Amino acid sequence: MFRMLAKASVTLGSRAAGWVRTMGSYQLLVPPPEALSKPLSVPTRLLLGPGPSNLAPRVLAAGSLRMIGHMQKEMLQIMEEIKQGIQYVFQTRNPLTLVVSGSGHCAMETALFNLLEPGDSFLIGTNGIWGMRAAEIADRIGARVHQMIKKPGEHYTLQEVEEGLAQHKPVLLFLVHGESSTGVVQPLDGFGELCHRYQCLLLVDSVASLGGVPIYMDQQGIDIMYSSSQKVLNAPPGISLISFNDKAKYKVYSRKTKPVSFYTDITYLAKLWGCEGETRVIHHTTPVTSLYCLRESLALIAEQEIRLPTITTVTVPAGYNWRDIVSYVLDHFSIEISGGLGPTEEKVLRIGLLGYNATTENVDRVAKALREALQHCPKNKL
Amino acid sequence: MFRMLAKASVTLGSRAAGWVRTMGSYQLLVPPPEALSKPLSVPTRLLLGPGPSNLAPRVLAAGSLRMIGHMQKEMLQIMEEIKQGIQYVFQTRNPLTLVVSGSGHCAMETALFNLLEPGDSFLIGTNGIWGMRAAEIADRIGARVHQMIKKPGEHYTLQEVEEGLAQHKPVLLFLVHGESSTGVVQPLDGFGELCHRYQCLLLVDSVASLGGVPIYMDQQGIDIMYSSSQKVLNAPPGISLISFNDKAKYKVYSRKTKPVSFYTDITYLAKLWGCEGETRVIHHTTPVTSLYCLRESLALIAEQEIRLPTITTVTVPAGYNWRDIVSYVLDHFSIEISGGLGPTEEKVLRIGLLGYNATTENVDRVAKALREALQHCPKNKL
Ligand SMILES: Cc1ncc(COP(=O)(O)O)c(C=O)c1O
Ligand SMILES: Cc1ncc(COP(=O)(O)O)c(C=O)c1O
Repeated sequence: MFRMLAKASVTLGSRAAGWVRTMGSYQLLVPPPEALSKPLSVPTRLLLGPGPSNLAPRVLAAGSLRMIGHMQKEMLQIMEEIKQGIQYVFQTRNPLTLVVSGSGHCAMETALFNLLEPGDSFLIGTNGIWGMRAAEIADRIGARVHQMIKKPGEHYTLQEVEEGLAQHKPVLLFLVHGESSTGVVQPLDGFGELCHRYQCLLLVDSVASLGGVPIYMDQQGIDIMYSSSQKVLNAPPGISLISFNDKAKYKVYSRKTKPVSFYTDITYLAKLWGCEGETRVIHHTTPVTSLYCLRESLALIAEQEIRLPTITTVTVPAGYNWRDIVSYVLDHFSIEISGGLGPTEEKVLRIGLLGYNATTENVDRVAKALREALQHCPKNKL
Repeated sequence: MFRMLAKASVTLGSRAAGWVRTMGSYQLLVPPPEALSKPLSVPTRLLLGPGPSNLAPRVLAAGSLRMIGHMQKEMLQIMEEIKQGIQYVFQTRNPLTLVVSGSGHCAMETALFNLLEPGDSFLIGTNGIWGMRAAEIADRIGARVHQMIKKPGEHYTLQEVEEGLAQHKPVLLFLVHGESSTGVVQPLDGFGELCHRYQCLLLVDSVASLGGVPIYMDQQGIDIMYSSSQKVLNAPPGISLISFNDKAKYKVYSRKTKPVSFYTDITYLAKLWGCEGETRVIHHTTPVTSLYCLRESLALIAEQEIRLPTITTVTVPAGYNWRDIVSYVLDHFSIEISGGLGPTEEKVLRIGLLGYNATTENVDRVAKALREALQHCPKNKL
């Protein structure tokens, strides 16, 4: 009744050999690894590093919900709910709001790959590692990169940015809202308006701040914003949130060159995520389970949980090695905290109080652990 | 005792405002979405489309294991086990074997972004959508793309490929092992050797075949291979497996230009995944939960489960509309199967029997459903 499509060739499914059997002259030269015969177990940890954070029970439960097809109507409904959830946490009405199927870095690339064309002037506030990272990415795709470099711990004023805009005439400005390598919040008031006076779009990284520090994408005139699943949202790492307003969309859709990546091409993602009317176009297989979890974490936020700010950065006390402190806290208290990153490497400890983890009890636990660590870790006389 | 790093600026964590409160002159203009107040529920479906497939119970359970830090030693151990599992299912001893934090498309981009430089000659076997996709990606990064175009359902002989190699002198040949849009298995014997005689590397896409059709990366002379989590491996979609042999690694490491993507830059991923000695370098936040699930799915394979071939493609019987059949089977049997893709759109049905789903019982269920569908779906008199 049904006829196999392929005639001359071997079809997938027409051959009943289990793959582990040898075929022709080939042999199983690589044996099954011993380590995989042991059960998987992971320790209980209080994750007070800069992410990932512990998952709320409801988010955790979503991780073992049964699989469904990524283009089935139930999944499209979940995607719709996620979009609305992002619009809420971003405080935006942008229709072009969706999930990128990769970590925060992938969202950063999605923004830059789609917004910048070779030769475009790109202005970056570099006051920690994330500006450096944006520069590295933009450089690879041939943008003209201009970094306003500041010391770790510093932030940008309107006047400083205006000088950069006047000098470099960028099409795009990148600012990090929560600089997780230095622990600094960049104030955002007035920057959107300022950029627009200079015909420049404002791109904000809110990976480490979203949900922990107030941000109002539309009201603050942010043209493009992205964030990630594993920080205050308390969802598993691996996917990211992104939104483009109409002006940003216009820049993307009027490009002369295709962006370098098909995987993160917004014109396709928009059709996959139903941001352009009802029809959905298959693009790649979306991470169904990760989306279940994100949906639940957005639902928790929509239920108006009050959430605390995110990453506290403290300098390592003189005479101590940060590694000793981090290890002590891990070994004796099962608490993960983290050292510095990029410009703050060796210099600071980073303590995350992310969403579900942001409780007074956890603050007390980590404070006690740190106190004890300072008593027991080796200290060099200076 | 600890001193805040940032002085003049506002630090993350120094501000105790819940993010949902209004700040300054801003207001919550976008209300919490109504849809998120309903509980998340997903239907029970037998997923016999071309992926994702149902998850084995052990894989499902791993999805709600507690979170740990992505650079903690327990996680590094899990990553090590995953690497060994991939080496086993790929039948390779390549040290440069790791997981890409994105779907199959992301792995395809990882391979092409790292292997090709602008101007490189790239030969593609295009006998379905996946060759077209490889062409699209390579084109965006400025490779010289040569497609050997064949009809859907056809495959390549050694002689045909040799003509292409002689004519185009490519640095890389792309073949799809399991062409999931047409249902064809590409035989691979001898292609590695042939490519090497022409100083060309062989890249194989085994997304839809791995675990269902025998493949022996090292013995078959495949230089680069990738696959994905959501097909025969029965893990959630969203991550992919990739391996480079030494020759392929040499090509990547002796590039004159940086690959366009930082997120998928193999020189960084190799350091993150411990493929270059013991030291691990932070790169991006890996998808911890997805890795738990993949680890369990690899463990199931290492336990020598016999798995059946993967995707069967059948032509839609004359007079029927494929959409009617797919809907009937979904609505009356809760079974997901799928229509064609790319060149086979409107023409075929694709039935996946992926790993855990590959049971005689499921074959009977889908056969019964199809039989009934043909009785009840409208048929045009021709
Ligand atoms: C501010 C900021 N931006 C971007 C990233 C990158 O995110 P990911 O590690 O998920 O790729 C991070 C991660 O820590 C971050 O804190
Ligand atoms: C042969 C083949 N290659 C690549 C892909 C792309 O994988 P993904 O959809 O996970 O991006 C698929 C997906 O169906 C496939 O079947």
